[in-house]
Amino acid sequence: MNEVRYIPIGIVHSPFKEPQNVPIQSVASRGIKGSVELALEYLEGLKDLAGFSHIILLYHFHRSRPYSLLVKPYLDTNLRGLFSTRAPSRPNPIGISIVRLTKIEDNILYIQDIDVIDGTPVLDIKPYVPKFDQRKTARIGWLKNKIERTSIINDDGRFAHGV
Amino acid sequence: MNEVRYIPIGIVHSPFKEPQNVPIQSVASRGIKGSVELALEYLEGLKDLAGFSHIILLYHFHRSRPYSLLVKPYLDTNLRGLFSTRAPSRPNPIGISIVRLTKIEDNILYIQDIDVIDGTPVLDIKPYVPKFDQRKTARIGWLKNKIERTSIINDDGRFAHGV
Repeated sequence: MNEVRYIPIGIVHSPFKEPQNVPIQSVASRGIKGSVELALEYLEGLKDLAGFSHIILLYHFHRSRPYSLLVKPYLDTNLRGLFSTRAPSRPNPIGISIVRLTKIEDNILYIQDIDVIDGTPVLDIKPYVPKFDQRKTARIGWLKNKIERTSIINDDGRFAHGV
Repeated sequence: MNEVRYIPIGIVHSPFKEPQNVPIQSVASRGIKGSVELALEYLEGLKDLAGFSHIILLYHFHRSRPYSLLVKPYLDTNLRGLFSTRAPSRPNPIGISIVRLTKIEDNILYIQDIDVIDGTPVLDIKPYVPKFDQRKTARIGWLKNKIERTSIINDDGRFAHGV
């Protein structure tokens, strides 16, 4: 299939300088502050965004390793199919985080609940809309009975490059 | 910033052959059936995924037009900042859809609630996990008072190439 090429539109500034110890999901990083610095050429596209309390960041996991199709996730001790996990090392290492948007000043978006490492290239910013983005009665497969551990587990570097 | 390159991992088969008349969000396409055909080399990565009732598809809006930073969304008559909308024509035209997963057979994922056109290149598949992907008390800016129209509005082709 044809390759697709994207140019990052901005960069994340975050207190997490290395993959280790980053919360594995933004629900586990309540209140942790950072920002997105948008390239100035896209400034006009931020109009109206401040009305939203949460945004979806799509970004490139620039520190991910080559992927394996079977992985041992943070929340489990068994090998799981990669696409049944949120592991950052994937064929196309694109990450999603829902973060709180507290303020926009010029091209800087101030965000909270950040689970992304410093320097992460941002590919897209979308408004978070509960009606679009929430589903009821979801079965969660192997994560059932394990998910409560999310808040106590941080990244240990297993999916990261050069650490 | 450095370009990132991705190779699609699969393709969407959908009853929507053209951008016009596609539901603008998967919440508005309940029951509409399609499938994702995963490239065979990634088959092993599907292990355990069938336990999840919903998956997140990340895909390339291959029929999007060149973007504008101010757009008139389907749900509004005012010009809005592009990043405060879910319009498909964006600097990096990456789409997100949460769809229902009904069955996996070999490399074919049978899905419902599909709001994507036929032939869409799939970049990533992630499990949908309410604890990770839902936020309470979200403000939704300009979409407030407009969102109830989601279910009655379909794409009219305004963001699509060649139509």
